[in-house]
Amino acid sequence: MSLSEFDIIDRYFAPLGGWQLTTTALGPGDDCAVLSPRVGHQICISSDTLIEGVHFPVAASGTLAAERSLAAAVSDLAAMGSEPMAATGALTLTEVSESWLKDFSSALAACIKEWQIPLIGGNISRGKELSITWTVLGSLPMGRYVTRGGAQLGDDIYVSGWPGRAGLALEQLIRHQEVAPELRQHYERPTPRIKIGQKIRPWVSAMIDVSDGLLSDLQHILLASKCGADLDVSALGFDVLLGEQTDSALHHLTHVLSAGDDYELCFTAPPSRRGELQSLAQVEVLPLTRIGQIVPGAGVLFSNLPPGVNASDLDGLMGYRHFQ
Amino acid sequence: MSLSEFDIIDRYFAPLGGWQLTTTALGPGDDCAVLSPRVGHQICISSDTLIEGVHFPVAASGTLAAERSLAAAVSDLAAMGSEPMAATGALTLTEVSESWLKDFSSALAACIKEWQIPLIGGNISRGKELSITWTVLGSLPMGRYVTRGGAQLGDDIYVSGWPGRAGLALEQLIRHQEVAPELRQHYERPTPRIKIGQKIRPWVSAMIDVSDGLLSDLQHILLASKCGADLDVSALGFDVLLGEQTDSALHHLTHVLSAGDDYELCFTAPPSRRGELQSLAQVEVLPLTRIGQIVPGAGVLFSNLPPGVNASDLDGLMGYRHFQ
Repeated sequence: MSLSEFDIIDRYFAPLGGWQLTTTALGPGDDCAVLSPRVGHQICISSDTLIEGVHFPVAASGTLAAERSLAAAVSDLAAMGSEPMAATGALTLTEVSESWLKDFSSALAACIKEWQIPLIGGNISRGKELSITWTVLGSLPMGRYVTRGGAQLGDDIYVSGWPGRAGLALEQLIRHQEVAPELRQHYERPTPRIKIGQKIRPWVSAMIDVSDGLLSDLQHILLASKCGADLDVSALGFDVLLGEQTDSALHHLTHVLSAGDDYELCFTAPPSRRGELQSLAQVEVLPLTRIGQIVPGAGVLFSNLPPGVNASDLDGLMGYRHFQ
Repeated sequence: MSLSEFDIIDRYFAPLGGWQLTTTALGPGDDCAVLSPRVGHQICISSDTLIEGVHFPVAASGTLAAERSLAAAVSDLAAMGSEPMAATGALTLTEVSESWLKDFSSALAACIKEWQIPLIGGNISRGKELSITWTVLGSLPMGRYVTRGGAQLGDDIYVSGWPGRAGLALEQLIRHQEVAPELRQHYERPTPRIKIGQKIRPWVSAMIDVSDGLLSDLQHILLASKCGADLDVSALGFDVLLGEQTDSALHHLTHVLSAGDDYELCFTAPPSRRGELQSLAQVEVLPLTRIGQIVPGAGVLFSNLPPGVNASDLDGLMGYRHFQ
């Protein structure tokens, strides 16, 4: 049986539209959805495209495609310090596989509730490759958004969570090695740091989510803030699991600095906020690791390199680029 | 020379971000853009994907791709009666053609200003086929949006402008026939009916933009409003140019009823609004053609068929469908 775009929407996506937030005035199904912004709040918006074979593996399950793609988009809301409000998804399919659509739809239903981001609209097309474009909207009090451009000299540089775990899981999957379950979940179902992003919003000076790789994304902060960074490389080796699962200090560092699959937050904050950030990390049971300092100049210096690693070994770790 | 995604953004898209509206708190370049909604207003949102070879011809110019794709998206804002506020674009390229990007960027710069919809963000990826997903945001006073579901028994049915002209232009292009300039502009640069949509908002009961074809999109109104339509087929032949350029009454009607390339508005309004709508059409120099009436039941009846055309000839004109 051949399904039309309307059949697919009715069967796999319309049921998801039944759950909305109080800010949703009109959900999916009309020419537009309508949102009622909270009084005194601003709206954050970001669009992200994820393509099979580029952002997730060819023949990935519907579950993985839904979870990774929506996480990547929602992560941008976290990086502004905003609260999720709504998402629209534009899905391009190469064929109609009902089992794939069922998995995609089920995983999506779980993610939108867990991350509190209702699906308010979308679009289905047929094309030559599978791709998903999410546009996500968030809400935050007037003027409180965190940009990439506010880092100040002397600020500490932090990264949340477990950067490198997802990238190592992907490497092991590609090499057909056994993947440790603790690594696998970081790749298959990354957790956008929505709650942490909102909690640290009052304390941080600049923030970005790590989508291209820590080093590459930190450079966006440095460029926007017109400053440099002194990275304490010894601090980057804090993840014991990653240490156990990698072959060498350089292999370990390579994943921490260049993997873009974790969707952690990289941010800067004045040293006066160390206490609050440490307490929050304990309460949330999530590392907020101080990895360096903002310094004059441009680019990144590496301090406290482990034995056997040279700064020149790290220069190439600039993350994923399209078209190069 | 090979350009990275960041080079492409810097060269062809960042300059467009220089023009913003007062509702734009933060334009492109950070994790999210930020909008300050107008007090007492709601936000309309719609996402649309357009794919080369499906929604515009293979090897279409950058100009045509920009103009048709953004028009299609903005048209959804018009169909709610809203005022454009912002757009984000996700562009997937198969290769980097600087001349194509230059044309695309120039055409986009003109469209965003003409339609007053600033570019606040986007995404560039590389994929196997050219596609563009636009997410557009509009603004309108609280509760004043027009859905597809408000048509009442006895309401008149209208269509704006010149439905069928763009579709006929495309047919002539595909057949390598000479295309009349008055037709060609409707295909190459459709005009989303933003101004008309906002002006008629207080008078209309239901509205949709014609993206799949007049008959197909009218059915969405009928389904959402739980009613039927009696179409006065003689009224659909009002476009003298279309009459001259088509081979027969059926050919003419086929384009009016099934072409989805014009992005006109189809709407319903009580007969008490005929005077206002007639005056507006004169002031705006744009036909607002009364083409039928809302009746009990479901589906579409055809009245006043021209000689040589049977209702059964029109049954198949249900517009473009993916996956069938």
